[in-house]
Amino acid sequence: MEVRNYAKGQWVTGSGTRKALLDAVTGEVVAEFSTDGLDYKGMADYARTVGGPNLRQFTIHERALMLKEMAKYLMAHKKEFYKLSSHTGATKTDTWIDIDGGISTLFITSSKARREMQNEKFYVDGNMEMLSKKGTFVGQHIYVPREGVAVHINAFNFPCWGMLEKLGPTIAAGMPAIIKPSPIGSYLAASVFESMIESGIFPEGSIQFIAADVPGDLLDHLDSQDVISFTGSAGTGKKISSHPNVIEKSVHVNLETDSLNCSILGPDVTPEMDEFKFFIREVANEMTVKAGQKCTAIRRAIVPEDKVDDVIDALKKRLSGVGIGKPDAHGVRMGSLASKDQQERLQRNIDKLKSTSEVVYEEKEPKYVDANVEKGAFCSPVLLYNKEPFKYDEPHEIEAFGPVSTVMPYKDLPQAISLANKGHGSLVGSIFTNDDDAAIEIAMGIAPYHGRLMIINRDSAKESTGHGSPLPHLTHGGPGRAGGGEEMGGIRGILHYMQRVALQGSPTTLARICNVYLKGAKQIETPIHPFRKYFDELQIGETHTTYRRTVTEADIVNFGCLSGDHFYAHFDDIAARDSLFKERVAHGYFVLSAAAGLFVDPAPGPVLANYGLEGLRFIEPVKIGDTIQAKLTVKRKTTKPKREDDQYATGVVAWDVEVLNQREDTVAMYTILTLVKRKEESV
Amino acid sequence: MEVRNYAKGQWVTGSGTRKALLDAVTGEVVAEFSTDGLDYKGMADYARTVGGPNLRQFTIHERALMLKEMAKYLMAHKKEFYKLSSHTGATKTDTWIDIDGGISTLFITSSKARREMQNEKFYVDGNMEMLSKKGTFVGQHIYVPREGVAVHINAFNFPCWGMLEKLGPTIAAGMPAIIKPSPIGSYLAASVFESMIESGIFPEGSIQFIAADVPGDLLDHLDSQDVISFTGSAGTGKKISSHPNVIEKSVHVNLETDSLNCSILGPDVTPEMDEFKFFIREVANEMTVKAGQKCTAIRRAIVPEDKVDDVIDALKKRLSGVGIGKPDAHGVRMGSLASKDQQERLQRNIDKLKSTSEVVYEEKEPKYVDANVEKGAFCSPVLLYNKEPFKYDEPHEIEAFGPVSTVMPYKDLPQAISLANKGHGSLVGSIFTNDDDAAIEIAMGIAPYHGRLMIINRDSAKESTGHGSPLPHLTHGGPGRAGGGEEMGGIRGILHYMQRVALQGSPTTLARICNVYLKGAKQIETPIHPFRKYFDELQIGETHTTYRRTVTEADIVNFGCLSGDHFYAHFDDIAARDSLFKERVAHGYFVLSAAAGLFVDPAPGPVLANYGLEGLRFIEPVKIGDTIQAKLTVKRKTTKPKREDDQYATGVVAWDVEVLNQREDTVAMYTILTLVKRKEESV
Repeated sequence: MEVRNYAKGQWVTGSGTRKALLDAVTGEVVAEFSTDGLDYKGMADYARTVGGPNLRQFTIHERALMLKEMAKYLMAHKKEFYKLSSHTGATKTDTWIDIDGGISTLFITSSKARREMQNEKFYVDGNMEMLSKKGTFVGQHIYVPREGVAVHINAFNFPCWGMLEKLGPTIAAGMPAIIKPSPIGSYLAASVFESMIESGIFPEGSIQFIAADVPGDLLDHLDSQDVISFTGSAGTGKKISSHPNVIEKSVHVNLETDSLNCSILGPDVTPEMDEFKFFIREVANEMTVKAGQKCTAIRRAIVPEDKVDDVIDALKKRLSGVGIGKPDAHGVRMGSLASKDQQERLQRNIDKLKSTSEVVYEEKEPKYVDANVEKGAFCSPVLLYNKEPFKYDEPHEIEAFGPVSTVMPYKDLPQAISLANKGHGSLVGSIFTNDDDAAIEIAMGIAPYHGRLMIINRDSAKESTGHGSPLPHLTHGGPGRAGGGEEMGGIRGILHYMQRVALQGSPTTLARICNVYLKGAKQIETPIHPFRKYFDELQIGETHTTYRRTVTEADIVNFGCLSGDHFYAHFDDIAARDSLFKERVAHGYFVLSAAAGLFVDPAPGPVLANYGLEGLRFIEPVKIGDTIQAKLTVKRKTTKPKREDDQYATGVVAWDVEVLNQREDTVAMYTILTLVKRKEESV
Repeated sequence: MEVRNYAKGQWVTGSGTRKALLDAVTGEVVAEFSTDGLDYKGMADYARTVGGPNLRQFTIHERALMLKEMAKYLMAHKKEFYKLSSHTGATKTDTWIDIDGGISTLFITSSKARREMQNEKFYVDGNMEMLSKKGTFVGQHIYVPREGVAVHINAFNFPCWGMLEKLGPTIAAGMPAIIKPSPIGSYLAASVFESMIESGIFPEGSIQFIAADVPGDLLDHLDSQDVISFTGSAGTGKKISSHPNVIEKSVHVNLETDSLNCSILGPDVTPEMDEFKFFIREVANEMTVKAGQKCTAIRRAIVPEDKVDDVIDALKKRLSGVGIGKPDAHGVRMGSLASKDQQERLQRNIDKLKSTSEVVYEEKEPKYVDANVEKGAFCSPVLLYNKEPFKYDEPHEIEAFGPVSTVMPYKDLPQAISLANKGHGSLVGSIFTNDDDAAIEIAMGIAPYHGRLMIINRDSAKESTGHGSPLPHLTHGGPGRAGGGEEMGGIRGILHYMQRVALQGSPTTLARICNVYLKGAKQIETPIHPFRKYFDELQIGETHTTYRRTVTEADIVNFGCLSGDHFYAHFDDIAARDSLFKERVAHGYFVLSAAAGLFVDPAPGPVLANYGLEGLRFIEPVKIGDTIQAKLTVKRKTTKPKREDDQYATGVVAWDVEVLNQREDTVAMYTILTLVKRKEESV
């Protein structure tokens, strides 16, 4: 098999000598690759001039739907990927995390983008800012796609997941990507990539692929609209962020590097408790899943000093039961490392750790199932114990990227917190306790040093997704040693590939740019009641001013009787005089109901339902004898894709509602959400 | 006057030879300074070990109130600052921007923090993330203060504003700061700083001050919890972001550097139109206010080719009327540059610009009012014209930091957009047009290259705050040449000094950490109706389940008659059968009103008013014969400071409301906001 490059819309075979990629298990050649002669500058330009403009033609929802389509396409082809994954030393569980987990990031990014972002080519961020007294000059933040290329430099451990978790947010944002996997396992990344190209789902120029050790001179050709997203070692990360051209051009860099993550056993937990079992299971799993080659794995198990023996005993017992060997052989729960190189590097770091920590578990002569120990990168778990973790820095600094973890004792919570933070910034920490007070104290103590914190007890354990699993809903990344970056996190990850801009101007102009009605923007009065118009016919800013209604004492009485709400401010003249309102006032919900009565159009029409309401504020009380009137303005329109079981094609129309009294004071303001039919012909 | 350092809670005089700071107008010595012998490492440690913990004891609202107090205190002392400001060459208008503008950033940051953030020691970011089917394992993002020191490296042009716009967000976030102003004008920054110390408002260790050219070896001692916020030249910015220790420790760096900002005159604008006058006024103002020494000034005026002559004529006329000289002399509208050094640097850059641009306005023998030209850093405006702005890079790259601007022509909008973006990233761009279509095309074309865009027409001009004015509500900063950073932007600026952490666990645990009720968290049933409890007595998660009510046909009829809402889904049996609901259903607002009837307690009590409602969703229709019941849970509590004219001390209680039917299906969910009395003794 050849791992080919995909550059400027073409499959390209490197011109030079090919390097071999070995099976992690058998040592046989799985594939070869070469990138010699690739035109890196041309690739970057192609992304910027072809891929970017192609992607930016679509709205965020349209691009999000491409991700969903792609996820479905890859899911249908996953058998091929599973086959290749076994060459990387991954067990079936490891592969499931990599492939199914990777594809699921596309599904979730897609659905969150469609649920939480507008269906526009930009993203409107936060509320309008009032910058002037009369409101003729206002502000609004928006995000727009960066007009450059996103360079993804991925790690070897999850060839599929690592590629897709970055690609989802990038494509959703509207940026093209150049993907450079690690050579180790790159045949798997290449196969997934090839499927993506075959699918034809992403527009031309959206994705390119470099099968290389290093991305040539690509970094020399990056500019201020470009983004580098890197996962890998802290050392390589630093090289990237200090690259002269990256500094010169203020290229946006996001680093996610390895870190010395910890798990803390709470002081309340005894060996008999469920939380103890969960802790042991988690530490052992994080050592053995993917043979511990996870940047999120638990490298430091921080336990109360009087539980150290119990923890070590339980971990030894659990680790000794783990079958290691050929990933698909019967009884194997831990496969091989990714390569012989990795194995050597790991051994060097284990030796360094041993200089200050005691080995409490290590198979002297491990028995591997169905494995060629000479050729395959096999390795047995190593559990260490460091008695004086405040004295020695090694367990907090040296990362053995494999099935290795160090147990260390603490006396009290401040010590546990200090030890956790001695990692100088981690991707994730976890806390196992049934005492929420302890959980809060530890969590708040270690939060500034972590990107993610998982707290496990008997309530959360069963459905927990695990210490080591970054989720597309949540930010992934951490401060300091972990690189200081952030990925994923729902739509937060998409915004990393966009530029935030503060717009200033008249509300009318900004409303037109943002395609949303902003307070103070011009309103358009039309003769037809807007509830008689189809989704397609409604314009942003279109306004309907209702007839009026005088609120009477009888209304209050009737509303109280009907609702059952006899609050003193409506019914007790004596108490009402002492209240904030100084006299009896109408129920807020009566005002809301009467306003609906003023604007609802009784006969069947395009408006199918009012399904929600946002941001209601009662500004002024409505008193007996006040005359109210409502003003209804089209605020925002969002097309909904018609599903098979939908009777009609519809869209969501958000209406700005203002209820005024006879003095034109606003008595209530809110936004209602309605489902409105689209014209059949437009579907 | 001596500009002293303030280190580790003490005023410190540098031990070495003092350097003199000269009056920009008279060349006389205004002050002296020395930083020799300062213990930079000790200062950073003091901030981390004294200032940080002191600040983090308080909630965000409490720290925001300190900012408000500080703003009031400085406002009361501003006469002293105005006096010193005149030595920097600033006119009264320039000084107003620097001092009143600077102080106002504290007021606005304070009020936005209190309005838009919770009154907690952390900030809850976004909604709960459902991570599991049954909801026993969920996610929630929060922000916590970084546990390091914020190093503020400020520019010379706005000694007060530059210090305060960074300090507000830093203190609100809970981080201590070490402030290093530029030596030029540092006597003004020092005087404002001294007032802050005198006030005693910020806790010990919150702020320190270095009166220096460079911050010694401070950068060598920074770590991953620290932040550097820099304003100044792109060159110095790059030195900071590539500093080996900054890279090594992933120190969080925010750069705001100079840039070649542009202003675009729309193709629709003729010399007779208001927008033409606004454009001329803005370009001229940006050249002369603060003698053009603003990182946001208009360096490039991009105008339709057929309007070039009109624009140049109008600008010449306007510039020739500007009185230049001693800032406080009668008739002076433009003062001096900040120093003789700056004057020389400016002249070198003007010369470079002249190599490819033609000078269209420059006083050969300028007459300065009441000025010593030898000693003072005076300079006359220079207007250039570049005929071929696509051919020459100088006007897009060389920043003459003074009263200098270059006019350049465009043929069509794509050309105007390309020219704007040739700045390779700017802090701000402005667009003058009365044609919203042109505004949209230009804005969307240049948005990715800008941090802020101002669009001016006859509606927005009068209340506009101007091209050159960054506002605390809006982000300040820009991509590429502008440094790639972001400051201010309301609470966005505060979050730069905090670490985002994704929490995972049971909703009960996360609710306790976040001090907010999360769906699925444990609810506490108490025998006393929660509306009879004072603010102080209510616990997060406390729940009241109401009695039930069967919804009848009579209810629908009565509600329709009372509200006037006769929508067919409630009243027309035939049409309702064809609707989404398949039969007549109760009004959504009836359900809301009936729920209120179920939980409202009629007699006067601690709950004073229901003033708002958020996030209402009607999930299931309520049909005739359905029996509903409401569940009311304390979701969030926010103490309000008691003002003088408040009758009671109060707090806001947000209640999670769920309305269920007889099958325990949720029919509606929302949050209501109530004002609740605090117990008198707690005030």
